[in-house]
Amino acid sequence: MKNILLLGAGRSASVLIDYLISNAPQENWLLAIGDVRVDHLSSSVLTNPLVRAFTFDVHDAAQREAEVNQADVVISMLPALFHPLVANTCLEQAKHLVTASYVPEDIKQLHTQAQEKGLTFLMECGLDPGIDHMSAMQIIHHLQGQGATITSFKSFTGGLMAPESDTNPWHYKFTWNPRNVILAGQSTAKYMENGSYKYIPYPKLFSRTEAFHVEGYGFFDGYANRDSLGYREPYGLQEIPTMLRGTLRRQGYCQAWQVLVQLGLPDDTYFLDNPQEMTYRELVESFLPADHGTAPLRDRIAAYVGLSPDAKELDLIEWAGLLEDEPIAMITATPAQALEKLLTQKWQLSPGDKDMIVMLHLFEYELDGQKHKLTSSLVVLGDNEVQTAMAKTVGLPVGIATKLLLQGNLKQTGVVVPLQADLYSAILQELQGYGVQFQEKVEALD
Amino acid sequence: MKNILLLGAGRSASVLIDYLISNAPQENWLLAIGDVRVDHLSSSVLTNPLVRAFTFDVHDAAQREAEVNQADVVISMLPALFHPLVANTCLEQAKHLVTASYVPEDIKQLHTQAQEKGLTFLMECGLDPGIDHMSAMQIIHHLQGQGATITSFKSFTGGLMAPESDTNPWHYKFTWNPRNVILAGQSTAKYMENGSYKYIPYPKLFSRTEAFHVEGYGFFDGYANRDSLGYREPYGLQEIPTMLRGTLRRQGYCQAWQVLVQLGLPDDTYFLDNPQEMTYRELVESFLPADHGTAPLRDRIAAYVGLSPDAKELDLIEWAGLLEDEPIAMITATPAQALEKLLTQKWQLSPGDKDMIVMLHLFEYELDGQKHKLTSSLVVLGDNEVQTAMAKTVGLPVGIATKLLLQGNLKQTGVVVPLQADLYSAILQELQGYGVQFQEKVEALD
Repeated sequence: MKNILLLGAGRSASVLIDYLISNAPQENWLLAIGDVRVDHLSSSVLTNPLVRAFTFDVHDAAQREAEVNQADVVISMLPALFHPLVANTCLEQAKHLVTASYVPEDIKQLHTQAQEKGLTFLMECGLDPGIDHMSAMQIIHHLQGQGATITSFKSFTGGLMAPESDTNPWHYKFTWNPRNVILAGQSTAKYMENGSYKYIPYPKLFSRTEAFHVEGYGFFDGYANRDSLGYREPYGLQEIPTMLRGTLRRQGYCQAWQVLVQLGLPDDTYFLDNPQEMTYRELVESFLPADHGTAPLRDRIAAYVGLSPDAKELDLIEWAGLLEDEPIAMITATPAQALEKLLTQKWQLSPGDKDMIVMLHLFEYELDGQKHKLTSSLVVLGDNEVQTAMAKTVGLPVGIATKLLLQGNLKQTGVVVPLQADLYSAILQELQGYGVQFQEKVEALD
Repeated sequence: MKNILLLGAGRSASVLIDYLISNAPQENWLLAIGDVRVDHLSSSVLTNPLVRAFTFDVHDAAQREAEVNQADVVISMLPALFHPLVANTCLEQAKHLVTASYVPEDIKQLHTQAQEKGLTFLMECGLDPGIDHMSAMQIIHHLQGQGATITSFKSFTGGLMAPESDTNPWHYKFTWNPRNVILAGQSTAKYMENGSYKYIPYPKLFSRTEAFHVEGYGFFDGYANRDSLGYREPYGLQEIPTMLRGTLRRQGYCQAWQVLVQLGLPDDTYFLDNPQEMTYRELVESFLPADHGTAPLRDRIAAYVGLSPDAKELDLIEWAGLLEDEPIAMITATPAQALEKLLTQKWQLSPGDKDMIVMLHLFEYELDGQKHKLTSSLVVLGDNEVQTAMAKTVGLPVGIATKLLLQGNLKQTGVVVPLQADLYSAILQELQGYGVQFQEKVEALD
């Protein structure tokens, strides 16, 4: 028997747990699932004889060491900040590790030690990062193998709502950590365009979007993610003139979010002075110059951010409840935390809601003197508010990679990101069986 | 004999050193001056028998302890980040301390220990903070003593150029730490207006100025400083509906600086990718969307920040050299560091240049059912580019406070800010002899 220890059983782990359980009999796996709470797991999980679910405190060193010690591989779906702690325990106990999160600096530094012990610390093996790397590398290797010169690569991913569940004017609901959505974009976005470095500071980020159309699904806006430059080397695109990674939203979202940014709402750097009494309307007022007239709040916001009072952006602000006399009612709160509280109510999934993952890769390349444009797109729909597209696309690559590792088919050691052909081919291949399938289109450019 | 140890002999210490030397014979002082370099001090200082100047490394614990041990009082004019180190040594060696800087949290925590040893750690005793506190408290105590209710207090200070030396379109030259000027305003400004909390995030700060006129000196723009709320309690103005502290600039500066903020230039949070080769023009280009047309850079900046291409703000940007093909020529640089390098050349004092300190206090209060407005203003001119108004107004209060301390006329112990009548009265009184004299005007309001 092989022992898998899964740490973290939250929203994004549901599909992963199903995958591991359904593979367990054939693969001879026992699955231990630890989290601060496990009582939300379905009874079919909790009563499965191959599963042991238990309350787990990542800060309890004795428990952490004991549990990791019993495992053959550890999967961490905990919040990313706990991964270094888990990785260090894996190193001590000489166990493999799989996560869906970016490689933080303190895990990067474990590379040589992990290699020396013959361990694989596979990181960035979820959706974004994860499927984005794998699907992009498959195209890059294919084009480079043909002798093409890639001149432009833009890649966007969005966790959105399926058309039938797209029921609010932001066209958005939370399927991922709300805090990350509220604070998105706050580190300067860096990318390359036509051979020039480009930097977009946060106050301009959501006003500098690019529109994309996806066949059958309409239009999306993409905004740039933090550091697109750092991927040139791992992707083997050191000399590429244009490279940009970004996030997709439905049209309207970014323009309205830009109003919140201009007001100063998504700010997590200071605490409000009176969040227990203050209402959301007063919070918005606190960002505006003192009201010396009688103009309605909506009109004053419009003037302050340079919009017309009937602008659609302000409809979204109103819909969110930001102009209402509803107390924030928090003992302490940064503006970002107050905003998160409000939006968590407004952007909540309803029973039966289906989410939608959209990923887009846009390449331009030259081959035999001819310029081409290649568009590769992925749309994955959720089944319901539990078996979400987010949980599928984050969890399945983690599960498949874990299987490859336990089968001895993942030979790379050290801190590994899935950029190698043998690894991404096997994972992308199996993902197709779960409906994770890219559509590719190539056009000649003149 | 009393021994004074002055740490830090930079630009702002020149007048302080003269003050200490001129008082030394009568007061029986010996003055030790330590800094990383002291060879720029005048020969009259270096050869004065009451002065010992020496190379000082604040990180050399043995030297720090030995020097502090020999002193009766330590004055620190070092960069503010070193004050906690100096304060801890003063505590160990049981010595008084005087600085012109804000009380940082880790010095605040030494209050009880300093009190127990009978030590005075006098902080915030320069210009701003310093003279601003003292002159404001004198008015507040006077008004409160009359039974007035203060309803509004706005206070602004600016380190600017005297009209005769005001020779560039920004109406500004560096008389203070350039880095602090470049990064000014980056923590959210907080204040009270008409009983409401107000927050101004950095991207809007320089667009939300208030204009003031000073008799004989024309117009100034004030922008809000970081936390005006924290001073309500120490000032005894807990219930005041309007309170704002800010910084003064000449008209035009803030509007042009706002363009730099919108572009993203004063950003110290990341490093540029190619600052050795990149020119200032390319740096500005890096903040703009890719140039798909042939519009001149100035016009594209104008469009990006919502100005007309002939706007005055852009004249100031051009004057600064930001549109020129001059390499940044730094091995590593944040955008803020690149900007600082450029402006340090452009905003340099010339021989004979005279600077100007302007301080404004604007009070509104009710007394016997009548509303009044009280304006108190201070203008101090520098003598030349060494004996600056900045060096006078920062150094003299420090020197006078040191004298009071050594004479036994400063009895408060612990971490002290000059808000008490006995302390500010004596200092403001002596300052008048140096031309630091406020003009007061009271008007009835209806």
